[in-house]
Formats: sequence, structure tokens, C-alpha cells
Amino acid sequence: MTQSLEDRFFSSDPAQRQIARSLYKRVKDLPLVCVHGHVNPAMLCASNYDWGTPVDLLIIPDHYIFRMLYSQGIMLEELGIPSKEKGGHLATPDHRKVWQIVCDHWYLFRGTPSSLWLRDELRDIFGIEEKINSANAQKIYDALEAKLHNPEFQPRQMFERFHIEVLATTDAATDTLHYHESIRQSGWHGRVIPTFRPDMVVNIDAEHFAENIQRLSQVSNIDVTSYPSYIAALEQRRRFFKEMGATATDHAAMTAYTEHLSEREAEIIFQRALKGQISTEDARRFTGHMLLEMARMSVEDGLVMQLHIGSYRDHNSAIYEHFGRDMGADIPVASEFTRNLKPLLDRFGREDDLTIVVFNLDETTYSRELAPLVGHYPALRLGPPWWFFDSLNGIRRFFDNVVETAGLYNTTGFNDDTRAYPSIPARHDLWRRASADWLAGMVLRGIIDEEDAHEMVVDMAYRLAKQAYKLES
Amino acid sequence: MTQSLEDRFFSSDPAQRQIARSLYKRVKDLPLVCVHGHVNPAMLCASNYDWGTPVDLLIIPDHYIFRMLYSQGIMLEELGIPSKEKGGHLATPDHRKVWQIVCDHWYLFRGTPSSLWLRDELRDIFGIEEKINSANAQKIYDALEAKLHNPEFQPRQMFERFHIEVLATTDAATDTLHYHESIRQSGWHGRVIPTFRPDMVVNIDAEHFAENIQRLSQVSNIDVTSYPSYIAALEQRRRFFKEMGATATDHAAMTAYTEHLSEREAEIIFQRALKGQISTEDARRFTGHMLLEMARMSVEDGLVMQLHIGSYRDHNSAIYEHFGRDMGADIPVASEFTRNLKPLLDRFGREDDLTIVVFNLDETTYSRELAPLVGHYPALRLGPPWWFFDSLNGIRRFFDNVVETAGLYNTTGFNDDTRAYPSIPARHDLWRRASADWLAGMVLRGIIDEEDAHEMVVDMAYRLAKQAYKLES
Amino acid sequence: MTQSLEDRFFSSDPAQRQIARSLYKRVKDLPLVCVHGHVNPAMLCASNYDWGTPVDLLIIPDHYIFRMLYSQGIMLEELGIPSKEKGGHLATPDHRKVWQIVCDHWYLFRGTPSSLWLRDELRDIFGIEEKINSANAQKIYDALEAKLHNPEFQPRQMFERFHIEVLATTDAATDTLHYHESIRQSGWHGRVIPTFRPDMVVNIDAEHFAENIQRLSQVSNIDVTSYPSYIAALEQRRRFFKEMGATATDHAAMTAYTEHLSEREAEIIFQRALKGQISTEDARRFTGHMLLEMARMSVEDGLVMQLHIGSYRDHNSAIYEHFGRDMGADIPVASEFTRNLKPLLDRFGREDDLTIVVFNLDETTYSRELAPLVGHYPALRLGPPWWFFDSLNGIRRFFDNVVETAGLYNTTGFNDDTRAYPSIPARHDLWRRASADWLAGMVLRGIIDEEDAHEMVVDMAYRLAKQAYKLES
Repeated sequence: MTQSLEDRFFSSDPAQRQIARSLYKRVKDLPLVCVHGHVNPAMLCASNYDWGTPVDLLIIPDHYIFRMLYSQGIMLEELGIPSKEKGGHLATPDHRKVWQIVCDHWYLFRGTPSSLWLRDELRDIFGIEEKINSANAQKIYDALEAKLHNPEFQPRQMFERFHIEVLATTDAATDTLHYHESIRQSGWHGRVIPTFRPDMVVNIDAEHFAENIQRLSQVSNIDVTSYPSYIAALEQRRRFFKEMGATATDHAAMTAYTEHLSEREAEIIFQRALKGQISTEDARRFTGHMLLEMARMSVEDGLVMQLHIGSYRDHNSAIYEHFGRDMGADIPVASEFTRNLKPLLDRFGREDDLTIVVFNLDETTYSRELAPLVGHYPALRLGPPWWFFDSLNGIRRFFDNVVETAGLYNTTGFNDDTRAYPSIPARHDLWRRASADWLAGMVLRGIIDEEDAHEMVVDMAYRLAKQAYKLES
Repeated sequence: MTQSLEDRFFSSDPAQRQIARSLYKRVKDLPLVCVHGHVNPAMLCASNYDWGTPVDLLIIPDHYIFRMLYSQGIMLEELGIPSKEKGGHLATPDHRKVWQIVCDHWYLFRGTPSSLWLRDELRDIFGIEEKINSANAQKIYDALEAKLHNPEFQPRQMFERFHIEVLATTDAATDTLHYHESIRQSGWHGRVIPTFRPDMVVNIDAEHFAENIQRLSQVSNIDVTSYPSYIAALEQRRRFFKEMGATATDHAAMTAYTEHLSEREAEIIFQRALKGQISTEDARRFTGHMLLEMARMSVEDGLVMQLHIGSYRDHNSAIYEHFGRDMGADIPVASEFTRNLKPLLDRFGREDDLTIVVFNLDETTYSRELAPLVGHYPALRLGPPWWFFDSLNGIRRFFDNVVETAGLYNTTGFNDDTRAYPSIPARHDLWRRASADWLAGMVLRGIIDEEDAHEMVVDMAYRLAKQAYKLES
Repeated sequence: MTQSLEDRFFSSDPAQRQIARSLYKRVKDLPLVCVHGHVNPAMLCASNYDWGTPVDLLIIPDHYIFRMLYSQGIMLEELGIPSKEKGGHLATPDHRKVWQIVCDHWYLFRGTPSSLWLRDELRDIFGIEEKINSANAQKIYDALEAKLHNPEFQPRQMFERFHIEVLATTDAATDTLHYHESIRQSGWHGRVIPTFRPDMVVNIDAEHFAENIQRLSQVSNIDVTSYPSYIAALEQRRRFFKEMGATATDHAAMTAYTEHLSEREAEIIFQRALKGQISTEDARRFTGHMLLEMARMSVEDGLVMQLHIGSYRDHNSAIYEHFGRDMGADIPVASEFTRNLKPLLDRFGREDDLTIVVFNLDETTYSRELAPLVGHYPALRLGPPWWFFDSLNGIRRFFDNVVETAGLYNTTGFNDDTRAYPSIPARHDLWRRASADWLAGMVLRGIIDEEDAHEMVVDMAYRLAKQAYKLES
């Protein structure tokens, strides 16, 4: 009667399920191309990495999980989330108790992607088949703890077992990439590449902007005192990242606003920023201008440009003050692309060799603005559903709203975008199943034929991401 | 071949229908928790209430119905809607003729929730199984008229037959609640509780604001001449409502804008308002400030705070002028929550004992703003789909867009929000069937298991509303 | 296993498919009522029309197709799209090579409506059953070329074979309608009527506005030197269009902004416009005012008023400069109707004999603004999904989001809105199938019964459009 886990995420219609199965079979064992994510490269340096406890592994790095517990009145302190003031783990609660709290409240996650990722991860990676609950919490904790000390569960062993073809990390522009260097020199064959993320030296309203620029001077060996030296330093960093294997950059902005400033205007605002004397308007214009500059550099150096638009970061002031960033309090805002991207597209939209991949958190823009834009401009591609929308319904809405206008080939496949390393296979698997099921529905309604569907499912699972991120060679 | 009415609103997929049936069976006879609505308490005072004609019962109070007829060129006067000038029922048309007009045009409602509610209400409450049409209009009128004179169809008898556990009305802050008092003293055991709705004394651009404040002075026994006395009077009314059984307040605003004013600023605007000298900006800021004040009072007195955001009231000027408010001419506008609610949430969002239930008419905010917000802030919950969205598709979109990010447990179950008293069971039934069917789909796709679904369906039908509105005791 | 083409676009659920089939059978052979579109009337003048090559027929006029190829790096020049500078076809590529490029890249259209329309058109009109690909490109070209020289494929023969009852073209206010006149005088019985589209003489920021006004003076025989003479000239043109069979007007605007200007204000702005000295604000206000004026004229002359809102035209500056308008670079923007249309609706919304049909490109407004508005105002109707949304998912979203609130009878059926003449039957067929399938789903879920569905499917396919556009006589 009910769906077996082998057929999970497929339609209950027998005809659709049968086609979905056959499409999924085609892709389920393809290598994972992890083109965008937040895995810590440090864990892949050492051949003897210490995961800490199951809570260190599964709860503390996962803001999807602790934000939900917080929303129901559980304080972050109770969950062992390190606060800023205390310098980290002071007065850390017993992780066994934290795990018990999580399991006692696991019903909160019913119907959420977190519950699916963790269920599939526990079963497929750690061999734990039981549904977690209050009664079995400690038993599962024991089982996890044992596994984490097992050499098979070392990050590099997982990398190989997961069949990861390439893993891109996301790294500050000022990062020395010493972990990446160390991985390279270790002789290990896993392909781990950096991604150039300059937000902290580009968004002039970032905390400690002047210090970040000092750091930029140091790592680039260019004394950044003016707008031209600033641009030179950024170009130096991009060259370095590219030498270290990067094929892409990544840029976050609350809005997609772009504007070209004259060099004089840019210099004036930059100088104000160094002195910490900027207005909100300055920040908006400078960020908008730097998106143009980064596109110009991408035309020159070939790095794929990722834009992540629409998150109001650190919305909960008290949480930000005590715990810092990335604490599950980033909330989307409505976005506009048609007008905001016009200055960028007028300059670089027709550059055939440029690839700008846009991500956003306002699903209304899929069919209204983004699909028409990527369905026209050669330089523009649409990234997969991001963040809250990296879910079964989110993925379905993405396909349904985007493909009719943009076509599949102006999208860029999947990226897992996660710091939860052992959840990577579960995330790709959910995408692959959702893709197969969606295609099966199209076959049955006579929109595409099975021949097309069999090509498309491989494109969605593997090829599109690899092509878009220039990982072919 | 076609769906029997017993299985109405369920998927046609046999596997899904079977699970939906079993889930629905679990909840179909649970008591009705009517936490928010607009039933007139007067009808529950008397043991001998006069319903008037079938048109008085079913058409005149139902702006969903007469707005649709109006949209197709039938004047409100033809339908017996009382106009303001004429002091009500002057020159009322023959209600039999009105009923005939309604039945002649009933095809207009094909596919609308109004048609489902009325169909189910006529069948289940009044025993009328025929589909209404021009030919049987008078026969159905006769049948309804006969029932309305039958003691079994008295409001209290219906209350008991409907299995209503609690019914919350919505009452002006200046209401003396004498009907509620009278129900209490009558010895009848039905639980009917008021809800504190202060819009007319808070929205300073309301018609007759100064008179409303005079009325507030009278009922509170506090001479409201200043901002502090105004606040004291509001607090007095809240205490009184709470004594009369209220567990919640309700606030309507066109936008979710919130702002904290200093006491001095609040006083200045309040004095201007008493003199009728406010600007649009004054009204916006004062309403935004009072939402903060009301949240502060809720922290103190424990009343649940409901926010209904996003309706442009009385859009049709001529209809408003001749017929007044609530005439089917309220039209939604786009809403923004992420920025607008920040001042409120920075102050009170972490209050664990506070419950703010948000309702809105802009479905795009479900996944983009509201689900992320209620999935983070302890004080925030999301109310069920409101008004135009209290429909089969509206409910499905709500679940599909909200639960993945917010979880089910940051939502608040159902409320019927109606003044159409005999339609209450049909409305809850539609919600319960839609919930069961949605859960069945999730079971079949391996997202939740049947054990979870059986708990969730009870939560959705009964528990969540009761908990959110603090009706447990 | 997979869907046969006879059942294309229907659900895979056997019960739903069976009902859908029976509903579709009812409407598949009904005449086509083509109430809005862009067919060139010239082709229906001659009894010996030269289609040119298959590329002239299928690719060059279809911006849906060449924008997608352009988005993947194929230049418009390569596709034979005539540029402005070169005065058209200079250096036109070999159309056989263009066709080969199109077929080589046909995979780009997988899942798009373009692929469905072309597939069905090739099969049903031209008898080509093969899926197009690189290998069979030239063979298909040959087959198409042969057909185009066959008298059976003359436009008038197609008109009759397509069973077109009426075809409305869209024509500039300054058009002399000589093609329409010529069709009338030819003795051919096909009903081809013009539509009055005054954008070029109303949107004062249009290129060459003053010249357009000169042309208006010429064709109207009214010397347009002032606002009153301008209005008189427009009224003259409307009378002329009506005499030539027009039943409707059509107005495009980026936003739905409406405002009533005094005659004095209108005159001042109009004079500035003649001198080419307007501001953006002038243009916005004048367009908003002229929408009111056009509604006033419609009340007087009975022409149905169509509003197409929300397209940012000619977004790609370089493409506009080299190739001109309608080059696949029109991108939607977010729209607002509740506030913007209020001035118009306050004046004319209650006019029972007036019909304003709104089209838009922001699907979020369907359920939030447009369905509530058309579900209330007698003068307002909602047009079918437009442009990017005239697709299977777009149509389903339209029905799901609109009908619950607006009812079906405040919508206006289908229009094909195309300049791709031979694709007309495929477009109507897709709509009819989508309607039948949607109704079948409603029957199975007990929302409507089969009796209702059988009436509704005819309304959707035929009656609603005919009634809304006053084509009954």
C-alpha cells in the first residue's frame, strides 16, 4: 500500500512510478559533481580527522535544524551552539543531552527536507534504519559515536565512497587556501577546488571592512590604498584562486541592483568606506558597481560568476549579537531582476564565453523575470532552487515554473550548497529522484518522449552542472 | 467512475484515496474548535431566535455570494442587501424572487468554495440533496423556510449538533459584551468567548475615530484625553475581555509595518488624531506603533495576538458610500513582512510565552517570508489560509509552500472565520478532508510514514488550534 | 505504457483521462474564435500568397524560437533575422542552413510550448510525423517547401480547414485597414476583423510620437494640434475601426497606473509631447489618463477594451538597436492592480455594458489582485494566460489560481495571440485539452459534476471568448 523507500519521492501513479524508476536507475550511480557548497576543506587535509560527537557532526553545523528547535522555544545554548562572548564551548552542555532534546522534538521536522536528508543519511551512510525518537535516542547516539571512530568514516574515505568527482568549497577572497594547498601536496587524488567569494572586501557595509582590506593587502602583496590598487589586488586574488583550481566566483547581495560608477565615483566611495564613513546608498551603489567589475573580470579570466540574491542576513538582532552569523535567522526578501540587472546585461549579457549563474529566494521571479532573462541572454544561467527551496516542492515548483520558458539548457543542474558533509549523497539523491519523477510526468502527458527524458535526466543529474562550471577538462 | 460525495476532495488515485479515507475517518467527528470567526453572539442568547427568510440566512450576510452576482451585473438592491441611506430594509425585494435570482445564476459559482460550502451545508444540515437550479429554486426555498421554523434549527441546537467545543466571536474593543454576559447567565453550557478587536480605536484614520474614543472612555470608565489614559483604557478593556473568557486579540492592518514611537511622539500624533488632523503618514506610524504596544500588552496578559494583514478595504467607493463596509469589495494588496515586522520581532520575537498569529492575503509571502520567519522566531505562528485562500487550492498551496520550511508545528490549524453560522461544519470538513488528502500524498511519496500522518491529521483538525489559542484549560 | 498522442496533455490517471477524453471530444471540433492575435491581414488578401521558405514561415516571425537559440549563443544574423541597418535581407544566410541550425539545436526546446506547438503543427497541418533532428532536417525542409507551394496551403484554404469562425488582427490606430477592406471586397466569406491599437499615438514616450500624430491627422482628416482635436481624431479612428468590423481595442502599458487629468493638465502634457519635451512622469501620467479616456470612449461606442500590462519592452539595448522591436527581449516586471486600477474602476467599474479585459505577466496577481477584482467589478474580466504563460503549466496555474475566487464566468476563454498563423489550431487544441483535463480533475474530486463540466468545457473553448468580445451577432 504505502510507498517503499526504494520508490521514495516518486508519484504514486503506477505508470509514472515505473517510468521514474527507469529514469532514476540511469543516474543514481553517476558521480557527484559538487559545484557549490560550504564544506570545510580542513577536514579533507588530514588523514586522521576528529569529527567530535554526533552532535558536532549533525546538529551544531546545521542551522536548518537548530532554527526549527529555536522556533519552538529551545534556546541555542541548550543545543551547544557556541556563543561569541564565551569564546566558543564554555559551559557546553552534555552532547548526549542535546541529542536527546533533538530526538524528543524530532516530530517538528515532519514534512521538512531536513527530516528526509537526515533519515536517508543515517540509513545509507551510518546504517541506522530506525526512525529517531525519544526512546531510541541514546542507542542511536552510541551507534553514531562508534561509526565516527571507524576509519571508514574518515572524510576522505567518505569522499571516495560517495563517488564525488569534484568538490568546490567557498572561500574568502583573503583566504590563503592553505588547506587546498595541503590537500594538493598530500598526494591524495580527490579533486577539491576553491571558489572565490569576495563579499567581505566588496560589501563596504560589512563589519570590519577596513581590516578586511588590510588583510587583502597582506595576502595580495599589493598595498590597497586606492580604488585602482583595490581592483589590482582583487585581480591578483582571482589569478591565485584560478591557479589553485577555482573555476568560479560567488557573490551575495541583498538585491540584484547593478550600476556602473565612473572610476572617480568609485574612488570617492571607496575612500569613504576605508574611513568607515559610508551611507546605505553608498553601500548599495558600490556593491552594484562591483558586480559589474566582477563580471568584467570574469570575461577576462573565464571564472564563472555566481550571484546569490535576496537574503536579509542576521534578521534576529539578539541572536546575531550573541552567536554571530549563519544562525538560521536569514530571511528572504522580495527581489527584482528585470530592472536591476539591466546595466549588467547591457554591458556583458551578450558575452558568449561569460557565465553568470543567478540564485534567488523569491520564487515569484522564476517565471516572471528569471526564466525570460536566462531564456534570452547568452551570458545568463539560472542556478537550482536555493536554501529553503532545495526541497521536494521547491524543486518541483522550480521545474514547473522555469523550464517552459527558459528551457532546461539555460539551467545549471544541481548543487548541494551544504556544510553538512555526510548529507551530500542524500541531497543529490533527492534531486535525482525529483528530476526523474518530474520527467516521468512529462512523458506520460506527451510533452516529451522517453528518449528525450533519458538524456535530460543525465543532464539534470550530472552534465549541466559540469558544463556550466567549466569542469569538463 | 466519478467521485462519490463520501470521497469528495480526495485525490482520484486509488492508493492515495484509501489512505486519505483512513486519515479522514480519524478526525471527521472530532469537536469543532472555532478560534476565529464573526458569528453574531446575539443568536446564541435567545432560546427562540428568528432566522428570518432563507435569504436572510444564506445570502444577505454572505459577501462571497453577492459580490459574484454583482460582478455579473446584478445590483445589490435586487438581492435585498440593505443600503445605508434607506436605513436598512426599505423597499426590500421579495425574498422568494431574490432566491430565484440566486438560483438562476448559481452556475457562476462552479468551482468556487462558496458552491461547495453551500452544497454541503444544504445536504448535511438541511437535508437538501438536489443541486440548486432555476427549476427547483422555489421548492428548495419552501424546504429551507420550513426547517428554519423547526426548533431543531435553533442556533443552540445547531451548536450542539455541530459538536462545537468553543466558538470565539470577534468584538469591538468598546463592546460591552452583553450578549456574552447573557449567554453565560442563561445557564446554557455552550462555550462562546469574545475576541478583543481594537481596530476602530487604534487605526486613527478610521471613520468617527474621536467618537470611538469617547465610547472607549465610557465603557472603560477612564477619561481618555491623553496617550497614557488611552493606553490605560485599552488595558482595562483587555482585562475585561479576558475576564469574559477571551484568549485572543485581533488586529487588521493594510500593511505589516511596525515602528516604536517614543511616548512623546505617540502623544503628539494621538492628540492630532483626536482633532481629526492626521496625515496618512501619522496613521501608518501610529498603527505600526500600536502593534508593538499590543504585543507588549500580550506579553503581560497572555492574550494571543492575531494579525490580519493585506486587505485594501472598501475598494469600490460607490458601494462603500451606499452600502457600507464588508460588501465584497475588499481587495488584497502585495505584502512585506521581513522588513516590516523586524521592529516588532526585535522587541518581542523571542518571548516564548507570546503567540502572534499572522494571517495574510499575499500567498507569495508564504514560502518567501512567513515560513522562514515562523520557522525561526519563538513568538511567531502562521495562521491558516485566509479569506479568498480558504479553498481547496488555497489550502493545498498553503501546505505545499509552508510546511517544508516552517514545519507543521509553527502553524495553527484551522479557523472558519465566518459569519455564515450553518456553514461552519462544511468549512471544517473541507479543511479536514484537504488535510487528510495532502498527508496521504506525503505518505505515498515516502516523505512521512502513516504513524506520523495519523498524529498530524489530528493536530491539523483539532490540537494545533486549541494549543495556539490557549484553549487547553 | 507511455501516453499516446491522442491523449496528449491529459493526466496519466486512468479515471481522469477517461473523463478528460469525453470532455475534449465535446469541443475538439468546435470552430476557432480568434479574438486576439497578430496575424498579418495581407496574407488573407491575396488568393495567391507567397509564404517564402519554411524558415520564413516558421522561424523568422517566431521570437519564442529565435530568442532561445540566441540564449545559447546563436546570433540572430545566423538565423536570417533581418536587421534594421541592412534594410532587411541583405546578406541573408541560406535558409536551408538556418533550418539545419534550428534542428541541430531543437533539444533546447524540450519541455517548452514552442516544441509542442511546432510538433503538433507539423503533424496535423503538414503531415510530418517525425521528431525533428539533425539527421532529418533537410528531408523535412523539402517536405515543407513542397507543401507551401501547394494551393491547399494557401492562407484562405487554411482558414477554412482550421474552421476559423472569426479572426481579429491587431492594427495601429493610424492604419488605413486597406487589407481588411480588400478582404471584404474580394467576396471571400472569411470573417477577419481589425482591433484598434492606439499605443503609438497614446504612449507619448514612443519613438517618433510627433510623426505618429501627423499620421493620425492625415488618416482622420482632423488636424491634431490640441488635446481636444487629438481626442476627436481618436474617436474618428474608433468609429472607422468599428465600421470595419472591430469589436475591441487593445492597449499595452508597462504598469496598470491610471489617473484622471483635468483637460488643462492633459493639454499641457500633450503639447510638451508634440515638442518631444516630456519627462518620464509626464509619460506615465498621460498613459494613465488615456486609459481612462479610452474606457470612457468604450462606454460610448461599445468596443471591448483590452489591457496588456507588465512587459518591459526591448530590454536588450543592442538587439533593439540592430534589429528593432519584438525580438524576444521583452521581459516581464512585477505588476500592481489594486491601487493602480482604482481611479479607472471608480469611474467605470460599475458600467455593466463596458468590458475591460486585463492580461498580465505577473502570475502572483492572479489570486491576489485580479481574481478578487474581476470577481467584484461588473466591467472587469480577466483574459487568458498571456505570452510566457500560454503553456500547459501556465494554463493550469491560471485555472487553479483564478477560478476559485473569480469564477469561470469572469474570465474570457482563450486567445491564441500569435503571428504564427499555421500554429493557431495547435494552440487552441492545447488549451482545449488542458481545459478538459483540469475539469476532469475537478469532477473526480467532487468539486463539480459531469453535467457542469460538459457545459464549462464548451464555455472555455468557445462561448466565453465569443461573448466577451461581443461576437455573438
